[in-house]
Amino acid sequence: MQITGHMIIGQQLVRGAAGTQLAFNPATRQDLQPAFGQAEPADVERACALAEQAFDAYRATTPAVRAAFLEAVAGNIDALGATLTERAMAETGLPQARLEGERGRTVNQLRLFAKVVRDGHWQGATLDSALPQRTPPRPDLRLRKIPVGPVAVFGASNFPLAFSVAGGDTASALAAGCPVVVKAHAAHPGTSELVARAVQKAVADCGIPEGVFSMVHGNGRVIGQALVANPFIKAVGFTGSRQGGTALMRTAAARHEPIPVYAEMSSINPVFMLPSVLAANAEALGAAFVESLTMGVGQFCTNPGLVIGVAGPGFDRFAAAAAAALQAKGAGTMLTAGIHDAYESGIGRLTGADGVQVLAKGRPEGAGCAAQAALFRVDAATFAASHALQEEVFGPASLLIACRDEAEMLRLAAGLEGQLTATVHCTADDHALAARLLPTLERKAGRVLFNGFPTGVEVCHAMVHGGPFPATSDNRTTSVGALAIERFLRPVSYQNVPPALLPPALQDDNPLGLARLVDGELRTAV
Amino acid sequence: MQITGHMIIGQQLVRGAAGTQLAFNPATRQDLQPAFGQAEPADVERACALAEQAFDAYRATTPAVRAAFLEAVAGNIDALGATLTERAMAETGLPQARLEGERGRTVNQLRLFAKVVRDGHWQGATLDSALPQRTPPRPDLRLRKIPVGPVAVFGASNFPLAFSVAGGDTASALAAGCPVVVKAHAAHPGTSELVARAVQKAVADCGIPEGVFSMVHGNGRVIGQALVANPFIKAVGFTGSRQGGTALMRTAAARHEPIPVYAEMSSINPVFMLPSVLAANAEALGAAFVESLTMGVGQFCTNPGLVIGVAGPGFDRFAAAAAAALQAKGAGTMLTAGIHDAYESGIGRLTGADGVQVLAKGRPEGAGCAAQAALFRVDAATFAASHALQEEVFGPASLLIACRDEAEMLRLAAGLEGQLTATVHCTADDHALAARLLPTLERKAGRVLFNGFPTGVEVCHAMVHGGPFPATSDNRTTSVGALAIERFLRPVSYQNVPPALLPPALQDDNPLGLARLVDGELRTAV
Repeated sequence: MQITGHMIIGQQLVRGAAGTQLAFNPATRQDLQPAFGQAEPADVERACALAEQAFDAYRATTPAVRAAFLEAVAGNIDALGATLTERAMAETGLPQARLEGERGRTVNQLRLFAKVVRDGHWQGATLDSALPQRTPPRPDLRLRKIPVGPVAVFGASNFPLAFSVAGGDTASALAAGCPVVVKAHAAHPGTSELVARAVQKAVADCGIPEGVFSMVHGNGRVIGQALVANPFIKAVGFTGSRQGGTALMRTAAARHEPIPVYAEMSSINPVFMLPSVLAANAEALGAAFVESLTMGVGQFCTNPGLVIGVAGPGFDRFAAAAAAALQAKGAGTMLTAGIHDAYESGIGRLTGADGVQVLAKGRPEGAGCAAQAALFRVDAATFAASHALQEEVFGPASLLIACRDEAEMLRLAAGLEGQLTATVHCTADDHALAARLLPTLERKAGRVLFNGFPTGVEVCHAMVHGGPFPATSDNRTTSVGALAIERFLRPVSYQNVPPALLPPALQDDNPLGLARLVDGELRTAV
Repeated sequence: MQITGHMIIGQQLVRGAAGTQLAFNPATRQDLQPAFGQAEPADVERACALAEQAFDAYRATTPAVRAAFLEAVAGNIDALGATLTERAMAETGLPQARLEGERGRTVNQLRLFAKVVRDGHWQGATLDSALPQRTPPRPDLRLRKIPVGPVAVFGASNFPLAFSVAGGDTASALAAGCPVVVKAHAAHPGTSELVARAVQKAVADCGIPEGVFSMVHGNGRVIGQALVANPFIKAVGFTGSRQGGTALMRTAAARHEPIPVYAEMSSINPVFMLPSVLAANAEALGAAFVESLTMGVGQFCTNPGLVIGVAGPGFDRFAAAAAAALQAKGAGTMLTAGIHDAYESGIGRLTGADGVQVLAKGRPEGAGCAAQAALFRVDAATFAASHALQEEVFGPASLLIACRDEAEMLRLAAGLEGQLTATVHCTADDHALAARLLPTLERKAGRVLFNGFPTGVEVCHAMVHGGPFPATSDNRTTSVGALAIERFLRPVSYQNVPPALLPPALQDDNPLGLARLVDGELRTAV
């Protein structure tokens, strides 16, 4: 399949007329062909109007049809094979194995949502029987969840497949019954076009209304804002910077009809090393931590940016082992020149900061947008007093924080901002301290994990990739895993609706075989 | 129990020092004793700090303890007996039977949430087993929902018990495990004090941390805004005007950490009368409609403010019957002088509007804040062209809209703003038209009902009292019924947490007997 530089608006390939943009290879610092035509606001309007036109027909599709459509998207992405991964490698600097793994995750995610659609727990089917003899009589009431309407999705730079055009936001919105308009990330426009055409082909092959999927290229400040401001759009999915996410939040809140923004923005993912585990295992933990930190050149939302322990020999041994491991790490190519520049500037800020000690740096820079890993150390009081030290440095850098004692560690935990993850390393001897820490970490993070590292986000039913602000814009939800579908649903109650007019999920004979809450009791499918 | 004019801050009775305010009897237009001391911002800060202090201990209580606490609150409110209803009558002008009914609803609501807490579906317990043999290995992942933190609740003027100090917002927040700080409505401060002391006594009797409940009196623009801006507050429940709700939304969005606002604001609750049902039953429907319209002097959020039909003999007969019934209705006392003034001004606006015909007015005003019912008629084209005609007139006024044909009726439905309810009256002969209308009404309203009137909101599992903006600030939820608890919860994922540290909801042996989703399969309690 040839990349053409077109946008996908329903079944049309459209050439954006607001100038052109080339993709960029961060490993070679060279531009890539072809040129991508950029959207004008009218392109966004057309995509959104098509999405609105498609909405009622799409949400009325049966679970079987919608699930088959998601599976067709997955199959078409698989069928792109090396064409897709090679272009993604050129656009992102990510290695082949990582991109093949990410492609697998992307199609598995689509297939998980096909299963979620068929299972139907998302419908929230709830029935309360009429009580005609009661004073006053109780009507027949039935509740289900319906999709909110067309959804705007912003592709992420750091997951060109799994969190981009047909990634988690798109998959969960389509599963919910919402048409999607994607703004492709400028860091991987060719990858985006390939995936968008795979989706478009599935739309045609499955007889889905064409407006269910569109993708535009364009400037975030103009085209991204126009998309969020469009009155047909009813929710937004975004993964990116805090600055970008909060700008979209402001636009969404200022609309005539405010809409929810699900923005996954920034996290420094604290790792707590408790005293007994350090006494037992400091060296191995130091080395394992550096593996997590430098994997994918540290470009994961869940990268461990803070390690917190009580000062003492165990923490010193951990620090020495981590420093030794990090010094041996080669420089890796970052996703974009902008991310690389921001990393360099973050490292510069930490290197010069009062009270911050440089423990180690990785092997020096190579060609292209290569990043040198870095490890710093600071005491807890200095950290707590500095807002700058608490900001995310996106990339393979981390800060070790030495606390005077357990009480200072607990206070430090209580003072943290919202996070995607919080990690505890401990042995059974540390459980009393861990039990004191856990209630704080639950309040700070969407996922609390023990004796592991936060990189690696499983796509399953029990995953939460979310957390309090500023990790995300909305802590009631997750952007990874089955529960992500709930972001794009709202409940509707049906009172005394004639049986002939009831939706299948709420009909007496339960034709979809759903688990339903009936008069307060959960009934699994007959 | 003597009303003292104090506020309730934890276990303290506190005299607000920012001036005093008297309650007002809208039936006699006379002030009521005693004077209520008004809060200073420091009182709000103290209440919020106490709530934060209480949060971790309160959310750690077992479902049994929390349910017993809710039941103790209900029992204490019941025990207030006539002291409560008499004061509420004096402060609101509502009749005794209505307030006794509302007290019953309030305590039943608390008891429903006690059952909801015990059932535990709200915990959303989800377990995905470890797959150590997989490449890469899958960790053990478990998810539950936890409360978001202290919640600010604003009492509503029109439900001095069921949507005020211990009403639906407070009951669902306490059930979720969130401490509550109430700003009492100035229209019923004595009623508020009585109920707050009933809650406070239950806190003490049940050994709940005192900060779990506080209530302040004060100006909404100062004290209400200070409450929403307080960093310890993590969510807001509000029922009131669009102006008040959107002001709180702006404050919440402008915080360093934005928080969700659940504001139930305004709705005109369209009622669609389809042709066959009018042919069969126009007179009886006209009379029944007027009963719903004038009940409680029209002061319900779900009051039927619009009736829409196709012009013709059936619609004319309906209009004539409604006009005749309305002319016989006496004037009723409204809740406050402010509401009465707003109603008078709304009626004045409709009476003078181009193309609007006055069909009937009720019997003229009596003493006090008495409101004369009113019925208007307009054609659909005039209605669609006028923004002013689409605004809520809170009180016993309604507008009949005559459409040229079914197509115009469908277009009118599609052009409506978000509503709490949408109603269809039909016979089987109308089902084809109803089926075309229903997908639009689902998108416009939180509850769609057939062959009834929207007043009367059942407190049950399948109720949605919510809907798209401007009916509410957040259409993903309901403020009435069991599902209201979800407003105050957020999911947390636990990865490889040692069994000794797992919360009960997620322990292998399921000590709470919850229904749980295990590896994607729903398992009801063993």
